[in-house]
Amino acid sequence: MTDTFDGGRDTGLLSPVRAGTPVETEVADRAWLQAMLDAEAALARAQATLGTVPAAAAAAITAAARADRFDPRALALAARETANPVVGLVKALTRAVAASDPEAAEYVHRGSTSQDVLDTGAMLVAARALRRVRADLYRTCEALAALAADHRDTLMVGRTLALHAVPTTFGLKAAGWRHLLLDAAERLDRVLDGGLPVSLGGAAGTLAGYLEYAALGEGPDGVSDTADYIDRLGAAFAEETGLTRPVLPWHTLRTPLADLGAALAFTAGALGKIAVDVQSLSRTEVREVAEPTAAGRGGSSAMPHKRNPVLSTLLRSAALQVPVLATGLTQSLLSEDERSAGAWHAEWLLLRECLRLVGGAAHTAVELAEGLTVSPERMRDNAHLTGDRVASERVAAVLAPRLGKVRGKDLLTEATAQAEQSGLPLPAVLGAIPEVAAHLGAEELRHLLDPTHYTGAAGPLVDRALKR
Amino acid sequence: MTDTFDGGRDTGLLSPVRAGTPVETEVADRAWLQAMLDAEAALARAQATLGTVPAAAAAAITAAARADRFDPRALALAARETANPVVGLVKALTRAVAASDPEAAEYVHRGSTSQDVLDTGAMLVAARALRRVRADLYRTCEALAALAADHRDTLMVGRTLALHAVPTTFGLKAAGWRHLLLDAAERLDRVLDGGLPVSLGGAAGTLAGYLEYAALGEGPDGVSDTADYIDRLGAAFAEETGLTRPVLPWHTLRTPLADLGAALAFTAGALGKIAVDVQSLSRTEVREVAEPTAAGRGGSSAMPHKRNPVLSTLLRSAALQVPVLATGLTQSLLSEDERSAGAWHAEWLLLRECLRLVGGAAHTAVELAEGLTVSPERMRDNAHLTGDRVASERVAAVLAPRLGKVRGKDLLTEATAQAEQSGLPLPAVLGAIPEVAAHLGAEELRHLLDPTHYTGAAGPLVDRALKR
Amino acid sequence: MTDTFDGGRDTGLLSPVRAGTPVETEVADRAWLQAMLDAEAALARAQATLGTVPAAAAAAITAAARADRFDPRALALAARETANPVVGLVKALTRAVAASDPEAAEYVHRGSTSQDVLDTGAMLVAARALRRVRADLYRTCEALAALAADHRDTLMVGRTLALHAVPTTFGLKAAGWRHLLLDAAERLDRVLDGGLPVSLGGAAGTLAGYLEYAALGEGPDGVSDTADYIDRLGAAFAEETGLTRPVLPWHTLRTPLADLGAALAFTAGALGKIAVDVQSLSRTEVREVAEPTAAGRGGSSAMPHKRNPVLSTLLRSAALQVPVLATGLTQSLLSEDERSAGAWHAEWLLLRECLRLVGGAAHTAVELAEGLTVSPERMRDNAHLTGDRVASERVAAVLAPRLGKVRGKDLLTEATAQAEQSGLPLPAVLGAIPEVAAHLGAEELRHLLDPTHYTGAAGPLVDRALKR
Amino acid sequence: MTDTFDGGRDTGLLSPVRAGTPVETEVADRAWLQAMLDAEAALARAQATLGTVPAAAAAAITAAARADRFDPRALALAARETANPVVGLVKALTRAVAASDPEAAEYVHRGSTSQDVLDTGAMLVAARALRRVRADLYRTCEALAALAADHRDTLMVGRTLALHAVPTTFGLKAAGWRHLLLDAAERLDRVLDGGLPVSLGGAAGTLAGYLEYAALGEGPDGVSDTADYIDRLGAAFAEETGLTRPVLPWHTLRTPLADLGAALAFTAGALGKIAVDVQSLSRTEVREVAEPTAAGRGGSSAMPHKRNPVLSTLLRSAALQVPVLATGLTQSLLSEDERSAGAWHAEWLLLRECLRLVGGAAHTAVELAEGLTVSPERMRDNAHLTGDRVASERVAAVLAPRLGKVRGKDLLTEATAQAEQSGLPLPAVLGAIPEVAAHLGAEELRHLLDPTHYTGAAGPLVDRALKR
Repeated sequence: MTDTFDGGRDTGLLSPVRAGTPVETEVADRAWLQAMLDAEAALARAQATLGTVPAAAAAAITAAARADRFDPRALALAARETANPVVGLVKALTRAVAASDPEAAEYVHRGSTSQDVLDTGAMLVAARALRRVRADLYRTCEALAALAADHRDTLMVGRTLALHAVPTTFGLKAAGWRHLLLDAAERLDRVLDGGLPVSLGGAAGTLAGYLEYAALGEGPDGVSDTADYIDRLGAAFAEETGLTRPVLPWHTLRTPLADLGAALAFTAGALGKIAVDVQSLSRTEVREVAEPTAAGRGGSSAMPHKRNPVLSTLLRSAALQVPVLATGLTQSLLSEDERSAGAWHAEWLLLRECLRLVGGAAHTAVELAEGLTVSPERMRDNAHLTGDRVASERVAAVLAPRLGKVRGKDLLTEATAQAEQSGLPLPAVLGAIPEVAAHLGAEELRHLLDPTHYTGAAGPLVDRALKR
Repeated sequence: MTDTFDGGRDTGLLSPVRAGTPVETEVADRAWLQAMLDAEAALARAQATLGTVPAAAAAAITAAARADRFDPRALALAARETANPVVGLVKALTRAVAASDPEAAEYVHRGSTSQDVLDTGAMLVAARALRRVRADLYRTCEALAALAADHRDTLMVGRTLALHAVPTTFGLKAAGWRHLLLDAAERLDRVLDGGLPVSLGGAAGTLAGYLEYAALGEGPDGVSDTADYIDRLGAAFAEETGLTRPVLPWHTLRTPLADLGAALAFTAGALGKIAVDVQSLSRTEVREVAEPTAAGRGGSSAMPHKRNPVLSTLLRSAALQVPVLATGLTQSLLSEDERSAGAWHAEWLLLRECLRLVGGAAHTAVELAEGLTVSPERMRDNAHLTGDRVASERVAAVLAPRLGKVRGKDLLTEATAQAEQSGLPLPAVLGAIPEVAAHLGAEELRHLLDPTHYTGAAGPLVDRALKR
Repeated sequence: MTDTFDGGRDTGLLSPVRAGTPVETEVADRAWLQAMLDAEAALARAQATLGTVPAAAAAAITAAARADRFDPRALALAARETANPVVGLVKALTRAVAASDPEAAEYVHRGSTSQDVLDTGAMLVAARALRRVRADLYRTCEALAALAADHRDTLMVGRTLALHAVPTTFGLKAAGWRHLLLDAAERLDRVLDGGLPVSLGGAAGTLAGYLEYAALGEGPDGVSDTADYIDRLGAAFAEETGLTRPVLPWHTLRTPLADLGAALAFTAGALGKIAVDVQSLSRTEVREVAEPTAAGRGGSSAMPHKRNPVLSTLLRSAALQVPVLATGLTQSLLSEDERSAGAWHAEWLLLRECLRLVGGAAHTAVELAEGLTVSPERMRDNAHLTGDRVASERVAAVLAPRLGKVRGKDLLTEATAQAEQSGLPLPAVLGAIPEVAAHLGAEELRHLLDPTHYTGAAGPLVDRALKR
Repeated sequence: MTDTFDGGRDTGLLSPVRAGTPVETEVADRAWLQAMLDAEAALARAQATLGTVPAAAAAAITAAARADRFDPRALALAARETANPVVGLVKALTRAVAASDPEAAEYVHRGSTSQDVLDTGAMLVAARALRRVRADLYRTCEALAALAADHRDTLMVGRTLALHAVPTTFGLKAAGWRHLLLDAAERLDRVLDGGLPVSLGGAAGTLAGYLEYAALGEGPDGVSDTADYIDRLGAAFAEETGLTRPVLPWHTLRTPLADLGAALAFTAGALGKIAVDVQSLSRTEVREVAEPTAAGRGGSSAMPHKRNPVLSTLLRSAALQVPVLATGLTQSLLSEDERSAGAWHAEWLLLRECLRLVGGAAHTAVELAEGLTVSPERMRDNAHLTGDRVASERVAAVLAPRLGKVRGKDLLTEATAQAEQSGLPLPAVLGAIPEVAAHLGAEELRHLLDPTHYTGAAGPLVDRALKR
């Protein structure tokens, strides 16, 4: 196949949610190449700590394992011949090591297999990207905590099924957003703290190749204790990479990929929840919050008057993509035999894209949360649109013990409809109903129906949530 | 709308993986109805423990809250008017309570909202179903542990990308299956142990309705300490239902649904991994394992000679469905406002189907694992199909220090191709190569290439895995 | 396995979008059972037309093939033994025929295979359900056409990225909804008109069984022309069922399922688009449209004042579920061998649910479209919220040739921001800018900025769309 | 935001299925940029044909619209401010035109909006990529037709639920693969022939901006006939781009995207079907087909003896990814208002990736189909593994009229089980059963049970399929 094109730059043109955000660097082809090289080098060093590879060889391999010395495009093209890029990478790394230390070249990829290197590399990439995501989630949560505290008691109408329901506070909404992001961070923590293992199985998951080479290195009785050797090798490899040591090789036990998919889809969804709320509150008719402004931000190519909520748009675009991409990762659990002929190969692109979209979205969320403008005035004005009807539930509650629950609610349903149609204040309508007037005076009705007096436990809930 | 049809029986005709398994009972419409009634009753009892509902009323509500007294079809039809079945259920329950205790009827659904009842009911259904799933996973794991122990050293060829790779043992494969199911059980545990909360928010998540009614019940100073009251109410509701108490109302913070989706998709995938492996090993040309036989089991409508691997087929059918269904649950995180106009409503069917498919699959897996027949003879015979070539990696390793890694592998690549084409034994081909013969005698070559001597750490890995 | 539970009634409790709608009857277990029986009977009659089954036997089979004579639950339970319900169904049907005509019983399922019967049955079910869906789409389109015509020139603000953009008309929006539904209907037509074939392949897709039995029936030279016989058999089977005749058996060529999935996902999405728009326009702050009211419709369990947009909520709930379910149908294309061990079995439930949700949603859409209330007054008032700024694009266009495009847009951007902050009318702000005032007088500015004069080609577009 | 990294090269390292294939060039960032520039230029030329833009200006814009003159990274970064790259592109293009012809710069993007340009560009990219895909499908189909014809009568065992079923021919399998790819090509044709429209709506889909500028250009009575003007503008734009003219602006009527998603998912699945079959037939124990060999192809990083089926692995990897990605495109139908705040933005990356994966897979399939090696000997040998039992269905058919269908099948079920356990030939076992021997002699039994005589209509089906 002729290759007249280099695949091009990946500029982020079609994915503004992550264009220019730090995660791009962490997950680019070059970073994956480096991570696979890191895996090869760490493996050599791990074997060196066990004495089955000379320390000098491990050092030479480590020195040569720098991505800028390799051509990822050539490796990508070579990968078509073997269905993965590691076969070519091992050849190239062997040559690179041999150039400076021919003896050390013998120790490259010793006893290993493509999947050990690619999977370990993938976990390194994921770990690096997830740490950034987590940091950005915590920064976002800080900003949301401040919003929640500042607006603990800021009246806002709660909306259900697109309509005004009963009052709440903006602080409770912001506390909810933060709570959801903390849930996301917790799920990422779980993955980061134990779910990202090295891959160490050899050709079919028995570590036979590693042991065979170790026997050569250690002499006839070198690996007399196989269990001990693989334990120590796994521990050393984990130590060198900073990843965890799995109980079993996981070539076709794809827990780490499924877990990553689930945690990333969750995080995207949590950020997406904030986005759809910000959009709901930004609508021209609502305007209770506004995205941070910046020169040129939110401009339209046609309409001079617009300041589009672009940050939440970017967040939502990621939230719509990641869950479907992650489905592919979950489905990779159906990996047949000791290595799947396709399910494994379907994971790489999906994982990278999930990491990149979530990384970009988390970074974008910081900017959104730190710069969000809140308008208590608009919130109050909007709450009064539905007017005194918004607390009608309350009068129903108060009347229940006097008139019965059913009768009470029926009365209120009629009265609110009448108030809406006539434009009369609800207290007036209710006051004109003898059954109501017998129990509640005009002043009492006005008090009960003032939305500012009916925010329930919104404040204490904010307090409770902020303790997390 | 006229309703000339009752929706029909849900017989499982289109879903044999769960037809007749216990999970059906746990998640049927009737069970959901009961769970929602349980939620209403528990709520009344919780309020009674706080003194805001009379104990007698709570008892009357509890007594009336029996699903067999209600018509789920009528409730389903009524749900079209309100987009959820709770509005109708509350009316029906109120009538049912009133029939025996008119005063108690006043206390039905006090201060509550549809979503509190439906979501709490959903969590009860999920908890009941998950416990069954978990129990079945553990039973399956026991059977797999026995297989792993029995076949710790049973030679089997490892297969990668559809081809023979290097030897392994069947014990290691069974241990891997068990390991993956334990991962699944762990993820279900996490959900069961903390991820299934009561829903308690009231109309827009502020608990205002609950507080308003509490104030009536307790007198003017009854809920002077709002924070304390909602804490105690949440604790009592959790206590009465056996669910956990959430930090915040989660009407549009859909962590529990996303977590359920992820755990169920994982479990389905883990069971599916076993299925695809059993199928691979059951193929006519392979026949290394066989599903348990039973009278009539595996029969074909056309072919007398067939004994189809039906249990793994059922497992795989579930594993292909659940991840896509669960995607919908993850996507429900994008719930706008204080209650979504559609995202919430999209969850119910998807959740039930995920629970039912996974429940059926887990139950089916018990039967598969407990009855799986293993044929060490076929495993040995198949390993010898690729013959001595299957351990060619090993000779490459042994030659590496003598001839160099690259030269060693190139020699073996040529020799194995020649052996395959000529039909000659690989030791003979290799022995005829002077470079090889200089280092390895005929006997040594035969020994090195005997697959039974090249299972690496399969045994110790089984030991390690079984300690989990 | 003991079966102490009958699976329960499928009441639609968890799926109000379809509860009580006609599609339920078409796709219930009983209907699938009937469709499979229809397939068996049609096959016998088709063979009878070719003379390879006695006409009396075909008649007896047809007479016996009534779903109410069979127990779907028993068939469902039996399906666990064979992974599909047809093996049991054939036995039961054979018994039922034998009860009246023992000789005819010999001709049940002659030469056939489970998949031929189940797949043909599935296509019958799909055809029946799709015809209903299509009819409901056309009814909805009629109502939408009337709305589009009535409101061809009703000013409404166009909204992009959640904000007011430039004016449009409600007629154009309604015409767009209709257009999308016609696209959906077109895709359903394509499937209905050629994509729903009989399944006729026999055990492994060669029709060998059919031919073998035909040879018996026709004598030694009966099927001397194999090609002719299978052509005539296929044609007769298609004729008897009303389905189309495929070129090849499609046991693992799953075009019909993938096509159904795509067409149903499209239809759900098209209906969902209407739903999200109706919700956007129904919001309390917007109130430009309202769903049809009915006694009890839209009620809340807590809030007396609410009239929730329940129909669009139901539509959206379906639109969120169907695309993920349909993904499973597309994935069934990966069916290995001559019959998949799992991919086939994963289709049935997904297909039924897609049909049922779309059927329910289409039925619901009729009610929504026929009863939608439109408020031109609210549309006009809302358009004036953004006021004269909403047509700022227009002044930019008019100034472009005088001041240059860039300068013109920059001026407008500043002026609209100033107008928004100061509350001054935009014509006044613009009139105070000498560069502008030099070209446009106060009256001209007012005229240009009047939204009612800036609906572009909305009217002609409605005319054009309604011609489709 | 500092941008210390350029996003990196997109080398295909994680996606070998498309690395180096021609589709990469068609869908790279640079190609999208060019397509958007093509859209801007075509729009100017279209306006010029209507006389509302000077021909010289259109020529200058066309001359400037060359992707190599723009920096896609800068545009990607700028897109974060506006949520799409067009706002920045318009500025850059205006500058580029102004550099050579300041007056012409005034006519860039006249009356237009970001979505018109990006969507038209996306359709251009899709059209170019789809044409390549289609050509590769046809090339693959040619190769498959030859395989089908050559092996019209090559005996192969049919496999269902992982087991030998009854005989078929390899020609029928190859004809089925081709048939499915023709189905895919037909679906792509449908999209290419009418489903890829220009986008022409202006800010909110009314074309108001276009009309406003046209009025300036044409004088006071220029667009007196609005309907005529937009018709001619649409026709001219379609003509200039080679795309079709839509009835309505489709900013939030996302039929083209949903159609593309469906057609691409179908194509990926069709290619994946071939892949899973090739893998099934390539297994070491089966070896009925082999992928084309090439130097270095199929090598393992560890095992010298392996020749992995890499092409089918790559195909399958694409088939596992595309359907989930395409789900996101279908879901974009839920685009609210006149432009969605997120659903639109979620499409771009998903569409590109679907095109790229399918393009790479189709290209890979050519190589696979043209080089596939078929082994009739292995097919025959494997068919004889199940031996005479594989045609047991046939004897059941022959006995049915003599013994009754049920008795016949029961007898065969017992006899095949006995033959399998004892290792005796089935004719011998059957011959020893008096009931059978009474009707069928030894020679007749041997003849009936010879798989080569039981391929049914496989041959005529191949003939029929190849006529398509």
